[in-house]
Amino acid sequence: MNYRIEHDTLGEVNVPADKYWGAQTQRSIQNFKIGKPASMPIEVIHAYGILKKAAAITNCSLGVLTTKKKKAIIAVCDEIVAGKLDDQFPLVVWQTGSGTQTNMNVNEVISNRSHVLAGNKLGEGKPAIHPNDDVNKSQSSNDTFPTAMHIAACIKLLDHTIPALEMLRDALEEQSEAMMSLVKIGRTHWMDATPLTFGQEFSGYVSQIEHGLVALKNTLPHLLELALGGTAVGTGLNTPDGYAEKVADTIAELTELPFRTARNKFEALAAHDALVESHGALKQIAVSLMKIANDIRLMASGPRSGIGELILPANEPGSSIMPGKVNPTQIEALTMVCVQVMGNDTTMSIAGSNGFFELNVYKPLMINTFLQSATLLGDACKSFTELCVSGIRANTSRVQQQVEQSLMLVTALNTHIGYENAAKIAKKAYAENTSLKEAALALNLLTAEQFDEWIVPEKMVNLQKHKNPSGGSETE
Amino acid sequence: MNYRIEHDTLGEVNVPADKYWGAQTQRSIQNFKIGKPASMPIEVIHAYGILKKAAAITNCSLGVLTTKKKKAIIAVCDEIVAGKLDDQFPLVVWQTGSGTQTNMNVNEVISNRSHVLAGNKLGEGKPAIHPNDDVNKSQSSNDTFPTAMHIAACIKLLDHTIPALEMLRDALEEQSEAMMSLVKIGRTHWMDATPLTFGQEFSGYVSQIEHGLVALKNTLPHLLELALGGTAVGTGLNTPDGYAEKVADTIAELTELPFRTARNKFEALAAHDALVESHGALKQIAVSLMKIANDIRLMASGPRSGIGELILPANEPGSSIMPGKVNPTQIEALTMVCVQVMGNDTTMSIAGSNGFFELNVYKPLMINTFLQSATLLGDACKSFTELCVSGIRANTSRVQQQVEQSLMLVTALNTHIGYENAAKIAKKAYAENTSLKEAALALNLLTAEQFDEWIVPEKMVNLQKHKNPSGGSETE
Amino acid sequence: MNYRIEHDTLGEVNVPADKYWGAQTQRSIQNFKIGKPASMPIEVIHAYGILKKAAAITNCSLGVLTTKKKKAIIAVCDEIVAGKLDDQFPLVVWQTGSGTQTNMNVNEVISNRSHVLAGNKLGEGKPAIHPNDDVNKSQSSNDTFPTAMHIAACIKLLDHTIPALEMLRDALEEQSEAMMSLVKIGRTHWMDATPLTFGQEFSGYVSQIEHGLVALKNTLPHLLELALGGTAVGTGLNTPDGYAEKVADTIAELTELPFRTARNKFEALAAHDALVESHGALKQIAVSLMKIANDIRLMASGPRSGIGELILPANEPGSSIMPGKVNPTQIEALTMVCVQVMGNDTTMSIAGSNGFFELNVYKPLMINTFLQSATLLGDACKSFTELCVSGIRANTSRVQQQVEQSLMLVTALNTHIGYENAAKIAKKAYAENTSLKEAALALNLLTAEQFDEWIVPEKMVNLQKHKNPSGGSETE
Amino acid sequence: MNYRIEHDTLGEVNVPADKYWGAQTQRSIQNFKIGKPASMPIEVIHAYGILKKAAAITNCSLGVLTTKKKKAIIAVCDEIVAGKLDDQFPLVVWQTGSGTQTNMNVNEVISNRSHVLAGNKLGEGKPAIHPNDDVNKSQSSNDTFPTAMHIAACIKLLDHTIPALEMLRDALEEQSEAMMSLVKIGRTHWMDATPLTFGQEFSGYVSQIEHGLVALKNTLPHLLELALGGTAVGTGLNTPDGYAEKVADTIAELTELPFRTARNKFEALAAHDALVESHGALKQIAVSLMKIANDIRLMASGPRSGIGELILPANEPGSSIMPGKVNPTQIEALTMVCVQVMGNDTTMSIAGSNGFFELNVYKPLMINTFLQSATLLGDACKSFTELCVSGIRANTSRVQQQVEQSLMLVTALNTHIGYENAAKIAKKAYAENTSLKEAALALNLLTAEQFDEWIVPEKMVNLQKHKNPSGGSETE
Repeated sequence: MNYRIEHDTLGEVNVPADKYWGAQTQRSIQNFKIGKPASMPIEVIHAYGILKKAAAITNCSLGVLTTKKKKAIIAVCDEIVAGKLDDQFPLVVWQTGSGTQTNMNVNEVISNRSHVLAGNKLGEGKPAIHPNDDVNKSQSSNDTFPTAMHIAACIKLLDHTIPALEMLRDALEEQSEAMMSLVKIGRTHWMDATPLTFGQEFSGYVSQIEHGLVALKNTLPHLLELALGGTAVGTGLNTPDGYAEKVADTIAELTELPFRTARNKFEALAAHDALVESHGALKQIAVSLMKIANDIRLMASGPRSGIGELILPANEPGSSIMPGKVNPTQIEALTMVCVQVMGNDTTMSIAGSNGFFELNVYKPLMINTFLQSATLLGDACKSFTELCVSGIRANTSRVQQQVEQSLMLVTALNTHIGYENAAKIAKKAYAENTSLKEAALALNLLTAEQFDEWIVPEKMVNLQKHKNPSGGSETE
Repeated sequence: MNYRIEHDTLGEVNVPADKYWGAQTQRSIQNFKIGKPASMPIEVIHAYGILKKAAAITNCSLGVLTTKKKKAIIAVCDEIVAGKLDDQFPLVVWQTGSGTQTNMNVNEVISNRSHVLAGNKLGEGKPAIHPNDDVNKSQSSNDTFPTAMHIAACIKLLDHTIPALEMLRDALEEQSEAMMSLVKIGRTHWMDATPLTFGQEFSGYVSQIEHGLVALKNTLPHLLELALGGTAVGTGLNTPDGYAEKVADTIAELTELPFRTARNKFEALAAHDALVESHGALKQIAVSLMKIANDIRLMASGPRSGIGELILPANEPGSSIMPGKVNPTQIEALTMVCVQVMGNDTTMSIAGSNGFFELNVYKPLMINTFLQSATLLGDACKSFTELCVSGIRANTSRVQQQVEQSLMLVTALNTHIGYENAAKIAKKAYAENTSLKEAALALNLLTAEQFDEWIVPEKMVNLQKHKNPSGGSETE
Repeated sequence: MNYRIEHDTLGEVNVPADKYWGAQTQRSIQNFKIGKPASMPIEVIHAYGILKKAAAITNCSLGVLTTKKKKAIIAVCDEIVAGKLDDQFPLVVWQTGSGTQTNMNVNEVISNRSHVLAGNKLGEGKPAIHPNDDVNKSQSSNDTFPTAMHIAACIKLLDHTIPALEMLRDALEEQSEAMMSLVKIGRTHWMDATPLTFGQEFSGYVSQIEHGLVALKNTLPHLLELALGGTAVGTGLNTPDGYAEKVADTIAELTELPFRTARNKFEALAAHDALVESHGALKQIAVSLMKIANDIRLMASGPRSGIGELILPANEPGSSIMPGKVNPTQIEALTMVCVQVMGNDTTMSIAGSNGFFELNVYKPLMINTFLQSATLLGDACKSFTELCVSGIRANTSRVQQQVEQSLMLVTALNTHIGYENAAKIAKKAYAENTSLKEAALALNLLTAEQFDEWIVPEKMVNLQKHKNPSGGSETE
Repeated sequence: MNYRIEHDTLGEVNVPADKYWGAQTQRSIQNFKIGKPASMPIEVIHAYGILKKAAAITNCSLGVLTTKKKKAIIAVCDEIVAGKLDDQFPLVVWQTGSGTQTNMNVNEVISNRSHVLAGNKLGEGKPAIHPNDDVNKSQSSNDTFPTAMHIAACIKLLDHTIPALEMLRDALEEQSEAMMSLVKIGRTHWMDATPLTFGQEFSGYVSQIEHGLVALKNTLPHLLELALGGTAVGTGLNTPDGYAEKVADTIAELTELPFRTARNKFEALAAHDALVESHGALKQIAVSLMKIANDIRLMASGPRSGIGELILPANEPGSSIMPGKVNPTQIEALTMVCVQVMGNDTTMSIAGSNGFFELNVYKPLMINTFLQSATLLGDACKSFTELCVSGIRANTSRVQQQVEQSLMLVTALNTHIGYENAAKIAKKAYAENTSLKEAALALNLLTAEQFDEWIVPEKMVNLQKHKNPSGGSETE
């Protein structure tokens, strides 16, 4: 490999000749051989592209950066945001806890790339744009990295996670509506209970996701606060007047999202409660999805020696040994994601609690973890929706059989023949493995006609009480 | 001990003669010898007192319970809420996961106690109020227990946890204002950095708690939804028309809190995302408090061979071996509580994710965990505020000395003599263990007058940019 | 209430006249109103009784305590260990993180109680035994509290948790042996699979617990190391020569357990990895028990519209609404305990990671959490064994029916008619909802005689390969 | 891109023309677009290479596979193990929870690659080696995937994690020995306490890691048990006699590690307690490393306004704003890794607890999480050792100054002038901000000569009691 020589205050470093990064990036590569290369999420790099552009615009408008330099910086930032320079960011998550090295990686790449865009050859001559004095002007790693964290997190949630959750909610709601009148046996304590309809059951899932979306959206105002303008310790040392507000406004314009400057910069550098808060909502959603997904696979269990109420789409050939076997693979992928998110929440809590003084130094870990959860949840919900939920159908004959054979229908007799007599019927039927009707008639407690009139599962589900059980999104 | 005989469908049970509970409670005592007796939180019992009263009022108003029975039930409920019958609830958390046995405990106590209040002797004759048919009318354990959970949780948060957090926030804000101009050395990466003021630093803590309070309050709407009216599986089987809404309104009136019937009863029985959500906010606050508490004890470390910036109140005699030793004991209690809450969040997540079909059967565990977190956080914040925060004072001479000796003040010279020259001064001072001024003069890079004019820590903290850094509660 | 006045270096304190504790205990009561009173586990107090007795014996044998004082101290220690003074320890977990206040509580009670045992009146005259100079001689809170933690933890595990787990393992092994030949349908991905026997299935549970016991016992050597002799920071300042080894030997003698002095006292004060390690094994066991308990309740689900393979003992009357309903209540209690233990493990990890310098100050939290897990696991396993596992029986007709109807038996035909033909049979049977035999004959792929000869579930379980599948305890 | 057509029982699939995988792999790519492509850890693929080779050898030796086929399979397996086919495994972690699709990916690649190695063209003609009938012979995904998990985990621990931990332990032990006599101030409750030496302090770190290594090695016997031979549900259906033992022996030979067949195959498929157990030890080590790393960065804090006892190597230029700033970057990377591992432990616990019936379907998640923890811990320990620990040196003048000024030295006077008089000196010195000596002389409690004779920090550390405090590895 060919190298060129770059310098920093510790001396010379060999940098691959065709890469735009500089000495500090190269040192980080060499000093932090931890985990896979280039593990710093690309979303953070892209967010940095937006940030550096906004900073250049703001610095220029406040008179501390020339228009020429501004334009040069913007040109590279646009390439970064467009993903054209993704291979220029080789650093890992497991670096300095402030993300300084990634900030310098961005600064160095912008400097060297602008040099080339200006018609020069990489490594020849001194770039007109200085990584620190120009690209990093009015900034510190300590306020840029948390700003990039928030930008990346908000974009991910709004463009990816939330739409995927809404897609899943809508698919579940469609199923709920389609099966609103289909009566099935209820189960509590994993045991047979009184009936409800599939539509009612699925409406509970819709409601869970709806509540989860509300919870997640509640966290956005905190996450939309940006640290930029705090510089090294929160005081805003070396920033021009009005910088913090203006740069946040610029980022809001560039992203078309309502970012604003953090009310308190000391918090914004030293704590990442906003990410802890927002990840808490992701975790809540993972908890909900575990319940929903487990229910669905249990209802689809069998097909013969399980519950077998639902039939899931068969997306893959079955077992190589056992022909005809269809496994709930989408659910398995989804629940693995949910467990990952639940574990990630512990990571976020511990990392968030370990800030000291003016800087939390678990920043790369926290944004990496957050983006993993938000990405996986979005991906898995989309996949689960398209390849599973939308194709679910009920095994109606089996559903009906389970309702009919259920001993818990006896509950409907309480108001007619009393709890004690009803109990006698249920116990006799269970002990002798007969139907409720057989037991009832054998006990001479009611006539066949009465039985047929009183034991009507459809009347036990009170559909009229739940006209809009899933609620829909308008009520929150 | 004297016993009386009680019956249930499994036969006879010996119950202590002087206790109001009945057969099912007694069986639970015998079958669940797990952990300390009577571990079911008393707040759940008191919430049940409210719930049973509201159910009686609603049942009566809807014509399914006589006024006489209503009054008899209310009389006992009032005693329960007032704490007069606390010793009648011997059951443990580790019982059936629906809390059925505690529901029956309440039903049995109300039945037997009303018998005695009506002038009868306990165990003699049949109570006019039947535990199931009257006290439990229009109810199931499956909807009463989650309702009691939400009532207990909301009251705890609103009457205890939130006020304690606000007290702490106010005390920190007072300290922030009192020390707003007191310049100290900043620290990032646990290393000396540019200065800020104590007031600024503490404003970050205020902001963290403020954000935590907003997050916690965001969870209340979900938590104010009540499951009551869903009965066994969410369909509301065996409830009169209009019951769910009316009983929620009644509970709202009795508690003067805006409770409302859950939009979706199927969710309300089968999932406890509302508690997961709300505990997530408690966990976020614990994360914040860990950071704040650790900062304060680090700043108070020493007194001589640590940082020693702050002096904490001495509430106890020091070590039996080491005279004059004052330990940050309130902080230690608080941080232990924070770690407990962080661990509890894992418990809540796992329990919440393990609902199946129509019922989550981790109810007693979840409310026990939630109430522990909410209670301990409230207690510890109050104690920490009164016995520590309010008495904190700065060791001003040491603070000043640390600022003066700091090498990072050299940052202020960047704009006057350039980064390179400033770096030379800092490095020389560090290497030779001298002051910046000595090093600067030795290098002939500026005059003593210039040094004194340019290196002014007070100018580096930009107080004017942060006129209301803690923000105050009005802005959210 | 009557009070007497006690003194410490901060002045006078009112102490309840009839209590043996002194000024420092009383201050702690007043300064730490956090959570329920007297929450410090009594097992820690009893362990302190052993520790203080051993210290007195050792101090005397090394010539730094008179025989008379030794005897006076021992007399009270014996009362403490016997549980006679349990009401003299009112302090909470949420105190100073070193447990100093509980150490002083013990010291004060021994001093005052010995005064009374010597014939004096409490509060009159000065006790001959000084709390610090005599009871605490050669000790510091910093080494006594972790020693009491280890003593309490080891006794709990060895006397309670491990025997309960062994009882559960034995009951599962009995069931495994009793049902070794009973063929049932296997389930993978929650879907029907090839058969196995109940005995084989249960042998997996036995093996899990067996491995868990090995893992738990592996942690004992670390937990048997005692910090005593390290005093304030681990150097053993103010202890006579040979003290650390001798006092550990004495504790070993008194408890008949192989305690020994910690190889490294600096670790023993500053870190509690031994408790983290041991709790990790408890967590592993909780993970195992979740799996086992969930399996059993799923297999018992129904009785009609679930899987219904197993029948659990009915310990309580069923639902007040639904007659004949039997819920797996012991399993619910056990799984709630398991989730608690899993959450507790997060608590232990965070607390353990937060030691700083010479002392971890999360000691009371850690031992409280540890003892909760160890106690609850032991209690719940015992209850689960006695009230559930021992009474489990199979619903053999249903089991047989599920095996017979299973499509996965077709796997046995692969070697006779090929995978492709076998697949055709399975698919036809599934599509037309017929039996495998009907489908096979309709396809003319084999004769009825061949079908009956080749499809023999009993031959598919390979019992001869698993003569001792549960392994037994001798092999590890 | 060019494609060729592959078939499976669901029909035709387009596969990239130059790839060796087949229809089932391709379907998985299309059905599981979750997270980054090819996220299944390559270590699992390499372990599969060993496994498939061992299976072929065993099948051949037991007469169910021809020698020719065995050789063909081995040839490809050797390429897989050598990493030559790494780009042929495009599947993600978030697939079916049994890892079936990755097993099929391996089977398909071996089949097609052997076809090419035999001189044929990919996609032309039918491979002589059938993916299921030959490569997968005597196997199921259900027993191969957990076997690959254990092989990958054991190799990672033994070749990577454990050696890195031992390297770190040795470096800390060297530092401990080098600084064994260097007296420093002790700190408890983050406050000044009695002195110890750096050597003693570091010996505690050595002891922690030593205990952690013992704990980790204790988990290996369980992890060395292999599921192979259990096939679909643990019964070993379709395996020749003696297969399970023989194939485990073959894997042991190939890897030179003491693998053995799992005592109980039902556990080995349905539960992953072995991985939970082993990860628990990794988590314990993360807990230890957090403590050690935090201590070291606190001791290096400053350099002037912190504790400043230790000086860490400067590996990178300091802040772009603040010249001369050296941050503990290696520690930050390490502690981020530790927090990741602690969070991962929650993931492992939840995943492990969610097995149902005959198969735990969180397998890919569990091995991915495990390998991440084991890899990152190993990498970070190595980096931390080489770039930080080995270069640590003490700031001896500051260390000495902190000892001299400490008020806690007064403890040494207790035995000469009594605790009360000693306390007077300490309090006077603290209140008047003087030295102990000045205060002592002003109080006329002893002479200057006596002070110098009695207050000798070197005598307070009891070095002779701790001749081998770090213990070394031989004693466990």
